[in-house]
Amino acid sequence: MQLLKQKILKDGRKVKGNILKVDSFLNHQLDIELLNEIGREFKRRFQGKNITKILTIEASGIAIAVIAAQYFNVPVVFAKKTKSKNLDREVYESSVYSYTKAQHYIIRVSKEAISKEDNILIIDDFLANGQAILGLKEIIDAANANLVGVGIVIEKGFQKGGEMLRESGITIQSLAIIDSLEEDGITFRND
Amino acid sequence: MQLLKQKILKDGRKVKGNILKVDSFLNHQLDIELLNEIGREFKRRFQGKNITKILTIEASGIAIAVIAAQYFNVPVVFAKKTKSKNLDREVYESSVYSYTKAQHYIIRVSKEAISKEDNILIIDDFLANGQAILGLKEIIDAANANLVGVGIVIEKGFQKGGEMLRESGITIQSLAIIDSLEEDGITFRND
Repeated sequence: MQLLKQKILKDGRKVKGNILKVDSFLNHQLDIELLNEIGREFKRRFQGKNITKILTIEASGIAIAVIAAQYFNVPVVFAKKTKSKNLDREVYESSVYSYTKAQHYIIRVSKEAISKEDNILIIDDFLANGQAILGLKEIIDAANANLVGVGIVIEKGFQKGGEMLRESGITIQSLAIIDSLEEDGITFRND
Repeated sequence: MQLLKQKILKDGRKVKGNILKVDSFLNHQLDIELLNEIGREFKRRFQGKNITKILTIEASGIAIAVIAAQYFNVPVVFAKKTKSKNLDREVYESSVYSYTKAQHYIIRVSKEAISKEDNILIIDDFLANGQAILGLKEIIDAANANLVGVGIVIEKGFQKGGEMLRESGITIQSLAIIDSLEEDGITFRND
């Protein structure tokens, strides 16, 4: 998605350690026009897939998911993160390992929010190691729902998540795949 | 806002301890059509106020704020919550006391995200004790920006936050004010 790549080059900030900061438009301050273009592009890429629900994870995924949901005419569910295991029996839970924080956290989705009739599109801002997506997939499987695919805004192609998920048979649509992130520039994978 | 009150009566769940659960449409699963009606209503109530930015707080405020932002044609900034004080010098910070969790947490907004030229509308899902709004107001003041007002989806009128904030001179627009929340029913304040 050309507009997104241009925005990353213009307003993204590179921080040491393969970190790309997009907090001026994607995950702190939110550029609503860009989010609408992103939502339209997800709709184009998942056209005709009969999606019934969009699933994301708090906090950065929420803004992208709700704007996109307007083009799909479906509700959004966002998985909640907690550090301790909650005792409420009426949720699906999954443990996600964060490489950044070197610790596991629990994500939770109400059992009432997903059913076996659902065709689910996962949407998230970043894909790096793919652990959050695996956690959401585990919850979708526990509900006997169907995962149609995953829409990602920015994939770090130099990390292993995208390859691992695609090899497991999951459809991933990333709007910008970064193959390298160096101090002197960002290299995008060709669409 | 009649549609919202009807939705609360139909789909809200009362849990003991004055807790109203709206996770089937407002803060876990998200009803996008309702969020759009809420966004339009905020625009109507803050018509002509020359708002330049919407400020909210992760995670539940984000969905409401981004949908509303489409009616104001402005960016959204969401304050990030952290449990530990982050050392990044380029943020405004404020300490917020959570009565629910009986502890303080830190909220942070990048200094680049708010400037003294901004006319800011705060949007959040719930207003109870008002501590989060005070924290956001402190950040707006630190940036020398102007707080135009606060848009709340559900105000717990039987808690002290709304009265305290209005007495301090802040404009609060709550789309549904609950005066009492008992097992046998919910009483709304008249508009």
